[in-house]
Amino acid sequence: MKNSIITLITDFGLEDEYVGLMKGVILGINPNAEIIDISHFISPQDIKWASYFLYYSYKYFPKGTIHVVVVDPGVGSGRRIICVKADGHIFLCPDNGVITKVIENITPEGISIVNNEKYFLKNVSDTFHGRDIFAPVAAYLSIGRAYTSVGSKIEDIKRIGLPDINQISDSIKGEVIHIDRFGNIVTNIEKSRIDEFKKQNRDIIIKIADKKIEGISKSYQEVEKGELLSIIGSRGLLEIAVNNGNAADILDINKGKEVKMYI
Amino acid sequence: MKNSIITLITDFGLEDEYVGLMKGVILGINPNAEIIDISHFISPQDIKWASYFLYYSYKYFPKGTIHVVVVDPGVGSGRRIICVKADGHIFLCPDNGVITKVIENITPEGISIVNNEKYFLKNVSDTFHGRDIFAPVAAYLSIGRAYTSVGSKIEDIKRIGLPDINQISDSIKGEVIHIDRFGNIVTNIEKSRIDEFKKQNRDIIIKIADKKIEGISKSYQEVEKGELLSIIGSRGLLEIAVNNGNAADILDINKGKEVKMYI
Amino acid sequence: MKNSIITLITDFGLEDEYVGLMKGVILGINPNAEIIDISHFISPQDIKWASYFLYYSYKYFPKGTIHVVVVDPGVGSGRRIICVKADGHIFLCPDNGVITKVIENITPEGISIVNNEKYFLKNVSDTFHGRDIFAPVAAYLSIGRAYTSVGSKIEDIKRIGLPDINQISDSIKGEVIHIDRFGNIVTNIEKSRIDEFKKQNRDIIIKIADKKIEGISKSYQEVEKGELLSIIGSRGLLEIAVNNGNAADILDINKGKEVKMYI
Repeated sequence: MKNSIITLITDFGLEDEYVGLMKGVILGINPNAEIIDISHFISPQDIKWASYFLYYSYKYFPKGTIHVVVVDPGVGSGRRIICVKADGHIFLCPDNGVITKVIENITPEGISIVNNEKYFLKNVSDTFHGRDIFAPVAAYLSIGRAYTSVGSKIEDIKRIGLPDINQISDSIKGEVIHIDRFGNIVTNIEKSRIDEFKKQNRDIIIKIADKKIEGISKSYQEVEKGELLSIIGSRGLLEIAVNNGNAADILDINKGKEVKMYI
Repeated sequence: MKNSIITLITDFGLEDEYVGLMKGVILGINPNAEIIDISHFISPQDIKWASYFLYYSYKYFPKGTIHVVVVDPGVGSGRRIICVKADGHIFLCPDNGVITKVIENITPEGISIVNNEKYFLKNVSDTFHGRDIFAPVAAYLSIGRAYTSVGSKIEDIKRIGLPDINQISDSIKGEVIHIDRFGNIVTNIEKSRIDEFKKQNRDIIIKIADKKIEGISKSYQEVEKGELLSIIGSRGLLEIAVNNGNAADILDINKGKEVKMYI
Repeated sequence: MKNSIITLITDFGLEDEYVGLMKGVILGINPNAEIIDISHFISPQDIKWASYFLYYSYKYFPKGTIHVVVVDPGVGSGRRIICVKADGHIFLCPDNGVITKVIENITPEGISIVNNEKYFLKNVSDTFHGRDIFAPVAAYLSIGRAYTSVGSKIEDIKRIGLPDINQISDSIKGEVIHIDRFGNIVTNIEKSRIDEFKKQNRDIIIKIADKKIEGISKSYQEVEKGELLSIIGSRGLLEIAVNNGNAADILDINKGKEVKMYI
């Protein structure tokens, strides 16, 4: 049968054996699974960023891909595990709200609680459901088990609050949701909002940490080396960057910081 | 033929090309090899932890898997490379004791020295046997060469001393063998010892760094956020953790620190 | 059809979703692609080291491998993307000189500019050509499209200056081009130069940071623990190391530092 893709998003890092063991368990059940690491460096237990991260990632994989998210501070407690079918993809994650951003944007075809122990490892530990539940269930899904076979259908799942966009006529307040490896500052202001502003043919101003940036650049090189710019990043979100430099360091910015855009 | 799994455990990190080149060499010999990184972040030359790491990892892979361990401070010296068959798995590693924890627990079916140069790269460097010997030999094993074909059988291999458990009636002294990414403190006290204590129906106390912890929790959430707890971790070992926090930071603990458990 | 190997060398790190998305795009076009990470930890925008890195890596992969290099500070500007066929391998990279070390050593069979938008994602972002151009083009190359099909042939591409070797009779001046994870100091002095010196049957002296090292060792263990040595590293380059220690820390050395070798 055709390879199935299983993606992994976790906060496990790569020092420990955690990710490797998930792969061992998957391959023991489906030797043809194609396992792709999206990232294992979600900040420990950062469900909010994981929720964005999943949403901005899944769509670049082919339909039928199984996306496993293990950012799971509640492991071993009563928290449920859910399997969500949406947009032709399968999502397997703790019921801790990490699926919020996806289902805010796409109505799921269906959701089940993962409670069919037939698909679990025989000994389920108290601390590592990634290996003992998520991995084997993903593997069974990848060889064709339906999302409805891994447990009972449900409707009601947990959602978390994601940072709001506050728009008052000519002014939008958003916030910093991520700093990437290059120090680029990622905000929650979407391209569609910028496009609306652009229609008004007035200059756009970005304000962050007492700095003002005029206009949205099309490339980093539009400004001098070392200069600040704003740009629509690869996630379709407004980003603040520095040509050939690290914007987060230069502005001394952390996640959660307010970003204002106005015309 | 069916894909064979080759796992890699090294102290190479991921900045350099070292791991990538091992994979290039393997795929040049067996294009169907399924290569899985367990970790490349063993502390440089930490043979003891690598020995535990291998033991707690290999069993989650299917029988027939080839496990390559390159934590190899003696590269280029006279140290031998060995190929060990045990529990249906193949282990390829320097003869520096890294196999100790596996063979303390499982009697090998057989061991050979890797000295058949037919399976090496043509030019063997003085410093990177991972690429020039381990990778090609693993690849040939993965296409069906027997462990006896890569060199002559031997009996006597190097063992290292691993931290002792010291049990005196109602009290066990162990030590910290690892700190994981979440700051969980992993000890060498095994679940079986805890189970023995539990049979006596008396309260278990853990003592570490002048802190006392009463009882073994089943999940992190059994205590308040920020509180210490003890739990049986995913390796079947006693761990000290903090609900939603980093235990190693809070207790300022390093590897080697004594941990006492008593009833 | 047979799996094709696509290697990735980037400065993306592994925290963000960037590498994962490139793989998602590739597998959407060629589900059988074998994607190998060589490294994603090139220092941000360090084209020089990436140029060496590529040259010392590619030859350990089978002929026909497609090597994708995305160290691309000029993304979104007018810089071109090129596809180079050389030594039976395909190289896909920005036209920013990163190919320099390869083509200094191997005359390309041919080069094309990547401008056939048929092979790009439909929406090309301003900031992430790795996902939107490099990944899909590599995938199409891996299913058999010729390098000439991805764009028009060209001759003239950008080259960068790489650190010079300065040889005056009995003395060679080179420099430090890399520090690896173990703190080994990698210079740009090639084994062939050392071999020439050796023919003269006089003692070789290495001078770095006011320290003198006599002779070239064959293994780290030839000196006492903690002692400096020089050795021919796995890239065929002169390296300075410390037995069981971190030479770069001990000598407080950075990239660019002068290294002198004389007899």
